[in-house]
Amino acid sequence: MRRIHVIGIGAGDPDQLTLQAVRAMRGTDVFFVLDKGEAKADLTGLRMNLLDTHLPDRTYRVVEARDPERDRTADGAAYSPAVGDWRSARAGLYERLIGEELGPDETGAFLVWGDPSLYDGTLGILEEVLERGSVAFEYDVVPGISSVSALAARHRTALNRVAMPVQITTGRRLAEGFPEGVDDVVVMLDAHQTFRRYAREDVDIYWGACLGTPDEILVSGPLAEVAPRIERLRAEVRKRKGWVMDTYLLRRHHRD
Amino acid sequence: MRRIHVIGIGAGDPDQLTLQAVRAMRGTDVFFVLDKGEAKADLTGLRMNLLDTHLPDRTYRVVEARDPERDRTADGAAYSPAVGDWRSARAGLYERLIGEELGPDETGAFLVWGDPSLYDGTLGILEEVLERGSVAFEYDVVPGISSVSALAARHRTALNRVAMPVQITTGRRLAEGFPEGVDDVVVMLDAHQTFRRYAREDVDIYWGACLGTPDEILVSGPLAEVAPRIERLRAEVRKRKGWVMDTYLLRRHHRD
Repeated sequence: MRRIHVIGIGAGDPDQLTLQAVRAMRGTDVFFVLDKGEAKADLTGLRMNLLDTHLPDRTYRVVEARDPERDRTADGAAYSPAVGDWRSARAGLYERLIGEELGPDETGAFLVWGDPSLYDGTLGILEEVLERGSVAFEYDVVPGISSVSALAARHRTALNRVAMPVQITTGRRLAEGFPEGVDDVVVMLDAHQTFRRYAREDVDIYWGACLGTPDEILVSGPLAEVAPRIERLRAEVRKRKGWVMDTYLLRRHHRD
Repeated sequence: MRRIHVIGIGAGDPDQLTLQAVRAMRGTDVFFVLDKGEAKADLTGLRMNLLDTHLPDRTYRVVEARDPERDRTADGAAYSPAVGDWRSARAGLYERLIGEELGPDETGAFLVWGDPSLYDGTLGILEEVLERGSVAFEYDVVPGISSVSALAARHRTALNRVAMPVQITTGRRLAEGFPEGVDDVVVMLDAHQTFRRYAREDVDIYWGACLGTPDEILVSGPLAEVAPRIERLRAEVRKRKGWVMDTYLLRRHHRD
C-alpha cells in the first residue's frame, strides 16, 4: 500500500521541525514539492534546504510540479466556488503525482508550512483524491508549529487572555467586521492590511512577517500608533523579496 | 544576567518536541518542575522522562516545588479574581525559585505542556515577577505543538473550513452558549463535558484524550451519536489514572 505523510514543517525556522517530522522525512521515498510560481521560489528553496539539512544521504527523490493557479480575481460570493474549482484542479494533479510517481509500496510526503490544520488545503485534497477512487493510499498527519504559535512566541505573549477565547480568521473575514464575542483575533492570509480599518479603536497589534527566517520583522503596540510603520515595513519586504507572509494578533481592550 | 526559557514541549508525545526545544533544554542549567499534587504526578514523570531521553549526561539540576492550589470553588463572577490571587501566589513562588535556585549567569527553564501561548499562565507570571523588580532576568519562548494541533493531526482534519474562522475557547465559555459568528470551535479546559448541551444540534465532534501518550483515545462523529461513548471513555480514564486531559473540536453544520 502507498503511504503519504502530510508533514507540518513550522513557520520558517528549520529548528522548528519536530523530532516526529524529522523521523517521518527520513522514512520518505518521494517528496512532492509544488511550486506556486516564481514569486514563491524562495519557499521551495527553504524546503529543499530542510531536506539537505536533515537527510544528508539524499536517499529520496523529489518530484516538482506546478501548482494550479487559483483565480484570484474572484471576490465576494464567487470566492468559495473559485476555491472549489482550484481544489479540484489540485486534486487531479495530486492524483496523478501519487499514482505515477510513487511506487506501490513507497512512502510520499507533502511538506506543509506551519501546521496542516490551519488554512492549508492538503488534507481536503487528499480526501478528494481518495473519493475519486482511482488511486489508493494511507495517510497520516504530523502536526507542525503554526505561524500563530511562532508569532505568539516571538512576541512572548499568550494568544488568549485569562479564561477568554481567541479566534483565528482571515483578512477577508476581518474586512466584514471585528468578530463578535471575542477580543483576541489572529488574522492570517491578509493581503490587504485589513487591520487598518480598526486603527481608530482601542486595539493593540502584535505583527510578524517572515517569522523564523533571517528576514523576520516584529512590530507590536497600539494599532493607531504602529500601523503606518507596519505598512511601510510590509511594503519594503514585498518589494525586495517579491512576496511577504505575515500574521498578526489584534487585542481589543475591554471598554468597561 | 539570568536567563529563562519557557519551552513548549508538545501535547504528550516526546517526539513532538522541536529541535529548537531540544537545543534550549541542552542549554539549561536548572529545570523548574512544579507539581500540582498527587493526581498530576504522572505529568511530572513524563517531563522527567523527556529530560532523561534528551539530556542523557544529566548536566542539569531539577528544582521541584509545589504549585499553589487554585481556589476551584470560586465560580461565575468570582472566577477571574480567584485566578488573579492564584497567579500572585505563583508569582511569589517563581520569584523565589529564580532568585534563590538560579545562579546569576545561569539559565533556567519551565517546560510547558502544549504551546505556552494557549491557556498557560507562565508568561503572565514571569511578567509579574519582572514588574515586582526584585529579581532580573531575560526570557524567551520556544513554541510547542499545542493539544489543538495534535488533536487535528490525529483526526486528520483541518480546524477551519475553507475561508472560515475557528475559535478556541474554554468549557466555561461554551456553557454560556455556542460562540457567535463561528461554526468551528475548539474547547479546552472542560471538566464538565459541556459538549453535551449541543447534542440536539447538527454538530460533529472530534474528541481526544491523553493525546500523544499510550493512553490516547480518539472519538469522532455526529455529537448526538457519539456523546455517550465519549462520556463513558472519559470516566474510565479518569477513574483509572486519577485525571484526564481532553480537548475537542465542535463543527456545526450550516443550515442553509
